[in-house]
Amino acid sequence: MKAVLAVHGGAGRWSTDPETIKAVKKVLEDALREGFKYYKSGSSLDMVVAAIEVMESSGVFNAGVGSTVDLAGSVSMDAGVMYRGKAGAVAYVRYPKNPIKLARFILEKTEHIILAGDAADQLAKKLGLDKHPGPAQKVLERYREFLEKVKRGEAIDNPYKRAIQLWLSLGDTVGAVALDSNGDLSAGVSTGGVFLKMPGRVGDSPIPGAGFYANECGAAAATGVGEFIILTNASLRIVDGICNGLEPEKAIESILNLITKRFGAGTAGFIALDRIGRVAGLYNTQAMPWGYITEDGEIKVLGI
Amino acid sequence: MKAVLAVHGGAGRWSTDPETIKAVKKVLEDALREGFKYYKSGSSLDMVVAAIEVMESSGVFNAGVGSTVDLAGSVSMDAGVMYRGKAGAVAYVRYPKNPIKLARFILEKTEHIILAGDAADQLAKKLGLDKHPGPAQKVLERYREFLEKVKRGEAIDNPYKRAIQLWLSLGDTVGAVALDSNGDLSAGVSTGGVFLKMPGRVGDSPIPGAGFYANECGAAAATGVGEFIILTNASLRIVDGICNGLEPEKAIESILNLITKRFGAGTAGFIALDRIGRVAGLYNTQAMPWGYITEDGEIKVLGI
Repeated sequence: MKAVLAVHGGAGRWSTDPETIKAVKKVLEDALREGFKYYKSGSSLDMVVAAIEVMESSGVFNAGVGSTVDLAGSVSMDAGVMYRGKAGAVAYVRYPKNPIKLARFILEKTEHIILAGDAADQLAKKLGLDKHPGPAQKVLERYREFLEKVKRGEAIDNPYKRAIQLWLSLGDTVGAVALDSNGDLSAGVSTGGVFLKMPGRVGDSPIPGAGFYANECGAAAATGVGEFIILTNASLRIVDGICNGLEPEKAIESILNLITKRFGAGTAGFIALDRIGRVAGLYNTQAMPWGYITEDGEIKVLGI
Repeated sequence: MKAVLAVHGGAGRWSTDPETIKAVKKVLEDALREGFKYYKSGSSLDMVVAAIEVMESSGVFNAGVGSTVDLAGSVSMDAGVMYRGKAGAVAYVRYPKNPIKLARFILEKTEHIILAGDAADQLAKKLGLDKHPGPAQKVLERYREFLEKVKRGEAIDNPYKRAIQLWLSLGDTVGAVALDSNGDLSAGVSTGGVFLKMPGRVGDSPIPGAGFYANECGAAAATGVGEFIILTNASLRIVDGICNGLEPEKAIESILNLITKRFGAGTAGFIALDRIGRVAGLYNTQAMPWGYITEDGEIKVLGI
């Protein structure tokens, strides 16, 4: 049973209503099937980007179309991808519907790694990438609800702590890790960031080594409180662990324990894959919908 | 001889004309003296920020006032700082004269780590930080010269490779590492990025673990081709080396050899300081003006 692609839909307190669970499972399965198309004909980069694109476009997760809003009520997104020692990423972008496609362009067509802000948006526009449709209805409702509470003078002693609570119930970043038939590994992530973040806030998702990492030993993709993931260099440390002989599960466990100890529970989750197709997904939150597909096309969805 | 603050003015092919050397040495000494004021009365964060502010304001280095321009002829800057397990950084900012001050604000006053683009610029404006005066005359001249060459149809087969050459002759990022009398370590960097970068390009300077890193064992600050520094997680690896018992010099050497092997010479330089005041500066470029000050106030300038 060799896994070749794994995806996650964000660590958090996922709604337990049957409709949501059904929708989440369907998108994860679609993403796995779409990415798997490139297992033999393409690369792990194709696999990761195709899977993330499905999740970004679904509106079900906090990435792409489903992205949350910042304190100003605007959508801004981060995304990154790594393959064969190169990385591409976008930070604080507002134009593209699928930031992962812009990240891939930077990886393949430039000598840079990260492009940010309005300049990255202009590039997306020039490339003819689809435009983001603006915040989803449910996100705007939640945002207006928050503003109403503020207007009514309800106690909100720490907006960011509150934001984390709200955002964890919304779900988080999407991510994917893949191993292609050449043996090359890729990792990628995409996110709308944390609800009620300060405008301009960039999380772990555009940072190789923080939100994602891939080399010849393994690949890892993160979800959770970006600041904690940056400070622990989490995805790099997981892949380091795999390079040092740990199974993906143990490699994640070691970093996740460190994060839980340092920053508390309810803060992070990871998926990781090694060069022989061993896969794992672990989180210190209530849930983290994730799944994988094997080289025979068998799909498994877990974590919800 | 315990060093308590070290600064660098960028790895590269520094001009050997006596006037430039004199100016560079003077700014480094001023930066060391300014930062040293906080050794006893303040923190290593105060020391690093004060030293970098002097270098940003000098116009002599590619940071703050002296920043280079991107392909569109605009200045945009990155900066970051780390202290006591927290980090603050700005990416792709155009407003502030001293991006390091905005990075410090994010570290101290928010729960975020990185703010980017126009939103970070608006924050700088709201905070009343000094506005950047626009590109320096010598930078604009160099930019116009480049455009003329393009117009005359001179062969420029790879703008970014050429950019690296030009930029190396200009000098690079500034950085500082400090140890205060409480034993706390800080690291910080500030840069105008690479000459003729794509607009929006973000380098290693706003990324903890890449351009800078500090913990209870040591502190490191980088300069060089940001993309290579990101991909090797260079500052993190140097501090890891110090935590594992290496002297700063050996810790830098190990990472610098890896970078030289993987990406070639002329690509990077580092300064590092450990908790007992051992300091080192190493580079694979022709020069890297750097210096340090000891707890007795003795100054040494090297690398040029």
